[in-house]
Amino acid sequence: MDNRPIGIFDSGVGGLTVFKEIRKLLPFENLIYFGDTARVPYGNKSPVAVQKYSLEIAKFLEMQNVKMIIIACNTASALALSTLRNEVRIPVIGVIEPGVRAAIKSAHNNSIAVIGTKATITSGAYQNRIKRLRSSINVIAVPCPLFVPIVEENLMNTKVASEAMEMYLSDLKKTDIKSLILACTHYPLLKNQISKYFDDKINLVDSAYETAKEVKETLEARRMSTEQETSGKESFFVSDSPETFSNIAANFLNRPIDGKCVFHPWAEF
Amino acid sequence: MDNRPIGIFDSGVGGLTVFKEIRKLLPFENLIYFGDTARVPYGNKSPVAVQKYSLEIAKFLEMQNVKMIIIACNTASALALSTLRNEVRIPVIGVIEPGVRAAIKSAHNNSIAVIGTKATITSGAYQNRIKRLRSSINVIAVPCPLFVPIVEENLMNTKVASEAMEMYLSDLKKTDIKSLILACTHYPLLKNQISKYFDDKINLVDSAYETAKEVKETLEARRMSTEQETSGKESFFVSDSPETFSNIAANFLNRPIDGKCVFHPWAEF
Repeated sequence: MDNRPIGIFDSGVGGLTVFKEIRKLLPFENLIYFGDTARVPYGNKSPVAVQKYSLEIAKFLEMQNVKMIIIACNTASALALSTLRNEVRIPVIGVIEPGVRAAIKSAHNNSIAVIGTKATITSGAYQNRIKRLRSSINVIAVPCPLFVPIVEENLMNTKVASEAMEMYLSDLKKTDIKSLILACTHYPLLKNQISKYFDDKINLVDSAYETAKEVKETLEARRMSTEQETSGKESFFVSDSPETFSNIAANFLNRPIDGKCVFHPWAEF
Repeated sequence: MDNRPIGIFDSGVGGLTVFKEIRKLLPFENLIYFGDTARVPYGNKSPVAVQKYSLEIAKFLEMQNVKMIIIACNTASALALSTLRNEVRIPVIGVIEPGVRAAIKSAHNNSIAVIGTKATITSGAYQNRIKRLRSSINVIAVPCPLFVPIVEENLMNTKVASEAMEMYLSDLKKTDIKSLILACTHYPLLKNQISKYFDDKINLVDSAYETAKEVKETLEARRMSTEQETSGKESFFVSDSPETFSNIAANFLNRPIDGKCVFHPWAEF
């Protein structure tokens, strides 16, 4: 039993989709979220930059005495997971592995599609992971860079979003793809629209949900769950304006954030 | 006469539209460009963050012995111009003042529209400046946050861009507006499409060009022009991957960058 909080971080607000699923599955755990809003987005930055930022945040979370770190960001999971596992002493879970396992399960040896930011897709992290686990499966990977700003601007139900989907996904629609990984933490907010675009005939793998399941299983397997039986506490740290974060966060969580949101500038790392 | 280089900076690649106009008007001047690609974009960050970043870059440019600093970024001009003028000893020129003056000239007392990032529009910098110079003029300011990613993804001629224009500009089109300031350094790359959207009946004020004119006039008035009569040298510094920058920069300049592009991580500021 371990009552220390779970640390979750992302480049900004996107990781709140993971936070939300973890909260749902683990209502009693204390959670600490870090959003690197001063340097968001990671999706178009270099591997070296993303590794450096991720390591700084992981060290900060360790100092907050967390028992586990969740990289709630696909770009950082793709580029910095092994760096973090080498550098911190607590378990580190990324969003890629859980998503990949769920996709392989549902794909029944058919092709799998992966959509994400440029950095995630270019890193080849999903493609390699799928190939390593099931080399017979064909992977089609498509970067969709406009989806993040569309979600952050709350434009999910606009013609702009429909046109962006047409632009990025029309080639995929022509294939017989059955399983599509939403390889960016912002994309679950576009889940309904994407599903509709494929006439509800595709299985969408939501890494946020799959990651939360993995966190729960890992805590139980290692006997690291909390003993608490009251609602877990929540605290938020951001590297830029807490007000802006709190406003957008409400969109992601469908509720105001619970607990304080503290400004922690990266310059203090 | 002053042969020192001119320093130009932006949050990323957008300021290259200003760089390009300065190069056209001042072919013999040596130019140094800094793109803060590790922290791009500034448009949705807080005033405190933008002031801090701008000041760090201005100090870096001073160390490169520049004779003048051009803030080739509307957000930084809106939020950090007076900070920089207080803190550095050389002339500092932003992109707002030149754009505002040109717009007032062409508006003939009709309303002026301003489009830009959220941070620029929310700062009220354009609105206040116009009111101060000509209080009778009505200003309509519209944030168009998707235009930057559309330009950076080179999607200017897609349906997504048309729908985004429809979304942001349809209300403006219903007014009798005659003069529109492109208050973001990325927007000149959408100039033709925006002009067409208004059936070529609107005067678009391109701050990049207006700023270049102001730089030339200031150098001449202060007798600070170069004596050189051969093509000026160019160097580029970025805080993230020089390769990525060089690739996107070619889009902005319509030619490969001339001169070296050096990695200067913000951690070294």
